[in-house]
Amino acid sequence: MTVMRFGRIATPDGMFFCTIDGVGDDEKYRVIRDTPFTTPNYTGQEYTKDQVRLLAPVLPSKIVAIGRNYADHVAEVFQKSAEHLPPTLFIKPPTAVVGPGAAIKIPDFATKVEFEGELALVIGKPCKKVKADDWKSVVLGFTIINDVSSRDLQFADGQWARAKGIDTFAPLGPWIETDINSIDVDNLPIKAHLTHDGVTETKQDSNSSQMIMNLGEIIEMITESMTLLPGDVICTGSPAGTAAMFPGDFIEIEIPGIGKLGNPVKRA
Amino acid sequence: MTVMRFGRIATPDGMFFCTIDGVGDDEKYRVIRDTPFTTPNYTGQEYTKDQVRLLAPVLPSKIVAIGRNYADHVAEVFQKSAEHLPPTLFIKPPTAVVGPGAAIKIPDFATKVEFEGELALVIGKPCKKVKADDWKSVVLGFTIINDVSSRDLQFADGQWARAKGIDTFAPLGPWIETDINSIDVDNLPIKAHLTHDGVTETKQDSNSSQMIMNLGEIIEMITESMTLLPGDVICTGSPAGTAAMFPGDFIEIEIPGIGKLGNPVKRA
Repeated sequence: MTVMRFGRIATPDGMFFCTIDGVGDDEKYRVIRDTPFTTPNYTGQEYTKDQVRLLAPVLPSKIVAIGRNYADHVAEVFQKSAEHLPPTLFIKPPTAVVGPGAAIKIPDFATKVEFEGELALVIGKPCKKVKADDWKSVVLGFTIINDVSSRDLQFADGQWARAKGIDTFAPLGPWIETDINSIDVDNLPIKAHLTHDGVTETKQDSNSSQMIMNLGEIIEMITESMTLLPGDVICTGSPAGTAAMFPGDFIEIEIPGIGKLGNPVKRA
Repeated sequence: MTVMRFGRIATPDGMFFCTIDGVGDDEKYRVIRDTPFTTPNYTGQEYTKDQVRLLAPVLPSKIVAIGRNYADHVAEVFQKSAEHLPPTLFIKPPTAVVGPGAAIKIPDFATKVEFEGELALVIGKPCKKVKADDWKSVVLGFTIINDVSSRDLQFADGQWARAKGIDTFAPLGPWIETDINSIDVDNLPIKAHLTHDGVTETKQDSNSSQMIMNLGEIIEMITESMTLLPGDVICTGSPAGTAAMFPGDFIEIEIPGIGKLGNPVKRA
């Protein structure tokens, strides 16, 4: 497949999948006829940055996430060593997905709501029982997810489905970077910048090198159990530095080589 | 909406949504043009029982399940009282769904795989923040789910997504019974009959009256957090009597007034 960025856009003419060329204000959005999962056929429609709003790049049939995949985050959240709390799988519902710029809406009953900046994989083809070494063959590309989590619900419920499954608690984007081989996935900076009361602080500043299970091991473990479908999203775990967000804040997750995912925080 | 049963069938001519009239060998399947979520338009195609295979009646965008909703089951699985372990939400992935008669396939790494017979609700319209008293207004009808669970993975992982999310671990069916008002949901027998080595035993023999949270409370709690979409499935929890299944077994969940959901058990 040709190297490119796939996205999904809202335009005055409707919502479309597209490819994205250029950088910053020079971004060009070329509408494709079908989905990002086949060789793109262009419709001829083109938009510039001021004409579009980016949406979540895919609507996943499921989001499978790995929890406790960074030792430093295990220590900060669970007060235990990763040795005693190995990585575990959980699922976020598709209805939690919002795109770049959309509000994270905190309901009254969700207290201590924290961001978790994570590298996300978008699956490109139906697959089962994928060996770790073959993981690239089933991945369409990389994107970013903010695995928003209500810590109080997470611990009160035991199961994390509600704390991490609230509507708007899965900001996803800004696009899918398909140039997998140009990105050093074992040495990828992951940052979260939180703006509170007008002051921006970098709260997460870690690196994918700190993952306990690497991308191949994650794909192998998940597909041992579950068939993955095109558009399914795999969250690879959050490094340390997660912190509470409040209405009025703005949270931006940054992964150099992929992009930035920024979302305002509001009261639901 | 007219009272009826909706199903999905595989026929020599393709897969269709249908309505189902009649009982047992006299069942008639009438193909509908669209989905069960609108007033049915019949195509005129009709099939008899020997011409079709029932499929899972819907392909849910998500399956939201309530765990620990029967005190007797909490005691048998967790060795604790329900007072100390209140109901909790978890999510099963759509890829776990299979229809009536399809094999539950147990992979090597899933040990102590148990059935859990449960009443399931099929959502009929997009909804959020539904009050308990209004639950019937968003439910298309009832069906049955077998919330198959690998107990060893469930406890080893802590999170239940993998133990309950393995492909084939969500048998669903046989159909959607939309005559909600004719069914006494607060007094509905729920049974599981396990056939092992040619001997059939009734392992679960309980009643929805034993639920800790009732249907309205469940819908209210879920939709406080998550938008539900047409076809989404809510699992209302398993009563006591769950037990291990082995390749060669046959497990049938029975809820009088709704139907029977039977599945063979095989080695993956």
